Amino acid sequence: MSTVMLQEVRERISKELDTVVDFWLKYSHDKEHGGYFTCIGKDGKIFDELKYVWLQGRQVWMYSRLYRTVDRFHKPEILEAAKAGGEFLRKFARVSTSNGQWKCAFCLTKDGKAVKVQRTIFSECFYVMAMDELGRVTGDKDMQLEAEQVMEQLIYWVRVDGSGLGRPQLLGDVPTNSMAVPMMLLCLVQQLTEGRDQEVVEKYKELSSWCVQQVLQHIQRNGTAILENVSPDGAELPGCQGRLQNPGHALEAGWFLLQCSAQREDKELQRAAIDKFVELPYQCGWDQEHGGLFYFLDVDGHCPTQLEWNMKLWWPHCEALIAFLMAYSQTKKPELLDRFFQIYEYTFSHFPDVKNGEWFGYLSQDGKVAMDFKGGPFKGFFHVPRCLYMCERILDDLLGSSS
Amino acid sequence: MSTVMLQEVRERISKELDTVVDFWLKYSHDKEHGGYFTCIGKDGKIFDELKYVWLQGRQVWMYSRLYRTVDRFHKPEILEAAKAGGEFLRKFARVSTSNGQWKCAFCLTKDGKAVKVQRTIFSECFYVMAMDELGRVTGDKDMQLEAEQVMEQLIYWVRVDGSGLGRPQLLGDVPTNSMAVPMMLLCLVQQLTEGRDQEVVEKYKELSSWCVQQVLQHIQRNGTAILENVSPDGAELPGCQGRLQNPGHALEAGWFLLQCSAQREDKELQRAAIDKFVELPYQCGWDQEHGGLFYFLDVDGHCPTQLEWNMKLWWPHCEALIAFLMAYSQTKKPELLDRFFQIYEYTFSHFPDVKNGEWFGYLSQDGKVAMDFKGGPFKGFFHVPRCLYMCERILDDLLGSSS
Repeated sequence: MSTVMLQEVRERISKELDTVVDFWLKYSHDKEHGGYFTCIGKDGKIFDELKYVWLQGRQVWMYSRLYRTVDRFHKPEILEAAKAGGEFLRKFARVSTSNGQWKCAFCLTKDGKAVKVQRTIFSECFYVMAMDELGRVTGDKDMQLEAEQVMEQLIYWVRVDGSGLGRPQLLGDVPTNSMAVPMMLLCLVQQLTEGRDQEVVEKYKELSSWCVQQVLQHIQRNGTAILENVSPDGAELPGCQGRLQNPGHALEAGWFLLQCSAQREDKELQRAAIDKFVELPYQCGWDQEHGGLFYFLDVDGHCPTQLEWNMKLWWPHCEALIAFLMAYSQTKKPELLDRFFQIYEYTFSHFPDVKNGEWFGYLSQDGKVAMDFKGGPFKGFFHVPRCLYMCERILDDLLGSSS
Repeated sequence: MSTVMLQEVRERISKELDTVVDFWLKYSHDKEHGGYFTCIGKDGKIFDELKYVWLQGRQVWMYSRLYRTVDRFHKPEILEAAKAGGEFLRKFARVSTSNGQWKCAFCLTKDGKAVKVQRTIFSECFYVMAMDELGRVTGDKDMQLEAEQVMEQLIYWVRVDGSGLGRPQLLGDVPTNSMAVPMMLLCLVQQLTEGRDQEVVEKYKELSSWCVQQVLQHIQRNGTAILENVSPDGAELPGCQGRLQNPGHALEAGWFLLQCSAQREDKELQRAAIDKFVELPYQCGWDQEHGGLFYFLDVDGHCPTQLEWNMKLWWPHCEALIAFLMAYSQTKKPELLDRFFQIYEYTFSHFPDVKNGEWFGYLSQDGKVAMDFKGGPFKGFFHVPRCLYMCERILDDLLGSSS
């Protein structure tokens, strides 16, 4: 019976992926200036022409990955779509900063003028993802080189000296291990090393271990909670920042660690990933009253100060689907598959827009659509298709067929 | 009949003000390091010890203003409460920046170490408000001088050269007249000139006119909408930023303009204030389904990208109460009083916490408490008591008695 259900889920997911790819191909491309519009209304109408760099990079990566690894997307149209974003990024994303260095912008005008530069590493991270994956499909050596160079810069900012990011040094601004940073670098290491020579794998081996260890530091409270921010030596931080939980983010870390544990054949890491980064965030994060995963929680039960704390966002559900399905595929424990079905049920009955395609991103606590756009400053062609793509591949493995 | 109702409202408001003052006196003071805690749970428990500078400045201002102008608060306890925050601010708020200048921090540790500095003018604005009002009650000339000096710095940043704020100059970051800026400066001019010599009034006269003109530029779409961001010469800006409406903010601007129009005996300004900044934001901002004012709206009916757009926040309702009551007191038009009663009804039946005192700040669209704390990073001892204080005074005027 479970096989029949898995087969049905696989069909639904695969059809959904086609719909989502079509949506972005149809509505997001700026034929005039290149790159992608990302603020897209429920029916595909562009409601703002700003181009967010995280989302440009992610979209380039997603098209390229689909082109490279999924037969039905290995077609010129998808490759051209990826290239259009890659060219725009290379032309406009980098901005000179006052210290004589550069950063990637956070946001650009439609014709590529920088609107905002963040003092964090994430624009650069998505730039690396885009360049590496697009480089793989175009065979462009310069892109590959650029990905590696920006990666070196990222490692320098994170592990040697972050002052180039432009944040002032303030006495009260204590050093923090924010989970996003080692998670993101771990993701990049997996990107840069996948299928590459042993030499490349060796080059990033120590970094990979460091990232895993930094992510594992977020297991706190005697192993009963994942906290989003800890001190650099893994102690709990005071106040709201220290008590913050982001279940979707922990679940995403969970499947990053699961991928890592599979590559290394590390059973202990697999167990930590499942027990701590998959099970715990679900247990604390699932809304018993209305279903769905909360966005933010406070480990001591205070009300988080983020106004959106109780909203149900699309991406934590995407990460949860990947995490539980991957955990099941590695262990075959039926309770993990049960959870996957539970999250699948909530996700597919709440987020997809049956009428116009793609998914709504933001629901109120009780599951009503609170914001009806398909793309916005933080929602692009990434979490939904990545989830559908990952789940489709895992399901194909489980079902013993290859698409 | 209306007099009886006004009398009842006056009593309720006055009692509420007492409760709110008691709440903050009891829970927010840091006896050890000085200054005020601002992250305060529903029952008065401190859930984070960070000290937000906007809120330190506003609380000093509020205590000082109550002490100076309301008989029943003219007592040593209130003065001491104000001084405790004023000393903390003077000792710790200013931070040297890399360009050899200074800024006020946005957030401090409990013992005064800077955690974050924003690249905007608002910490400094609330610093000026605090110093000027506290200086009035202590007679401390240095404080007065400091208020004027920081005001000069603010004027320089806004009207001459804003590069000292630390924002990089980016080609796509077009100059914007954001309503908060002229509103805030207008509020400071009113603060610095109230009851002062003609010389001081003259000094700020041109600035005052400039602020009013800059605020009036936000009347857009042939006089049918107030938009939050416009170009420096008063044209509509493209995209979400250009279409953004913040009804509570427009209503606050409304009563700032009404105060101004009364001082200048300017009937035309009064009419613009009421028709455009009081009536229009109510008409577009009132939720016909659930009552209450939306936080953000898009003038073309798109969904705003701010996740909290449909929440009902305490402060827009505070500003609406002041705006409609002031508009009524200046014109005696009964429809303005009807609106006041309508907003009063919603506000007093949704925000006050009858059990533990003070007000909840954040409701979901349908009016349920979404965040149960009384103080947070942006909610302090300011909007609620300022609203109650202003309304009490206006009601006393209307009722022909003085408290």
